[in-house]
Amino acid sequence: MAVRRILGLDPGLRRTGWGIIDSSGNRLSWVGSGVITSTADRALAHRLAELYARLEDIVVEFQPTEAAVEETFVNQNPDSTLKLGQARGVALVVPARMGLTVAEYNNATVKKAVVGTGAAQKDQVAMRVHRLLPGILVTKADATDALAVAICHAHTGRTNAALAQARIAAGAGS
Amino acid sequence: MAVRRILGLDPGLRRTGWGIIDSSGNRLSWVGSGVITSTADRALAHRLAELYARLEDIVVEFQPTEAAVEETFVNQNPDSTLKLGQARGVALVVPARMGLTVAEYNNATVKKAVVGTGAAQKDQVAMRVHRLLPGILVTKADATDALAVAICHAHTGRTNAALAQARIAAGAGS
Repeated sequence: MAVRRILGLDPGLRRTGWGIIDSSGNRLSWVGSGVITSTADRALAHRLAELYARLEDIVVEFQPTEAAVEETFVNQNPDSTLKLGQARGVALVVPARMGLTVAEYNNATVKKAVVGTGAAQKDQVAMRVHRLLPGILVTKADATDALAVAICHAHTGRTNAALAQARIAAGAGS
Repeated sequence: MAVRRILGLDPGLRRTGWGIIDSSGNRLSWVGSGVITSTADRALAHRLAELYARLEDIVVEFQPTEAAVEETFVNQNPDSTLKLGQARGVALVVPARMGLTVAEYNNATVKKAVVGTGAAQKDQVAMRVHRLLPGILVTKADATDALAVAICHAHTGRTNAALAQARIAAGAGS
């Protein structure tokens, strides 16, 4: 069975969580994860360039072929939303430019895929991520969130593949 | 007198205005300008990758050494603000990664620099941009706005240079 290597991202200007998993049939495994931080006292353009370079390094090192980015919660504060959008633009553009497919999932979809309910608490998501990925070495919340997005994408891709299989079996073509 | 070549940008997900001017002492001249549009039916990550590639082409073609990006008006609508932020992240990261200095100016500062008052109307800004840049071949509003940001940066740089000169003349060092 083919292994899919998925990069999950939870973008933010101060902290961007990233997580890489392998998905093969029903089996998931942890490959790597971490948090990219940016120094608040540098100019915005340089912070974004830093984020770009770090994400590029991660793609080069781990060679994922698919990316999944969290459709982050839109803040009430327009300034925060603009900042988040800027980091998110970089998080989307790096994998796209490097030839990965890029999917987006909102928070409720991620929670539903990982815990089973869109109303799950943050610590429930974290516990479930650790259970689903044996051998995981990760502690930071942003990295766990990124792994949750990757798991969500692995499940969704499997569902799509199963549906495609079913369509082929039913003789309906693709 | 050294010539500064400045790239002005007015970013947006659907339309990003760009304009390049040369600034030498008190003289400004128009080099090029246009609008990058993105196709709404493509996935967001691909639209941002398109924007990245077009901006990169412009920097390679015109070789500016300084960039100035409009601190765009933050919308009441959080979704629009997030979209704008994503395009703005790309508009900031491309020149930063290509070694240009990147400055940011808010709308009122741009109007004040170009027209003389932060409360100027859009058509007053456009008229003034055309007057300041003889030989200009530009019609689209987003391109005119981008040229206005470039002019603002040219003025600001000149003011900073004049202040530095005055400080040196006064024996205060840098």
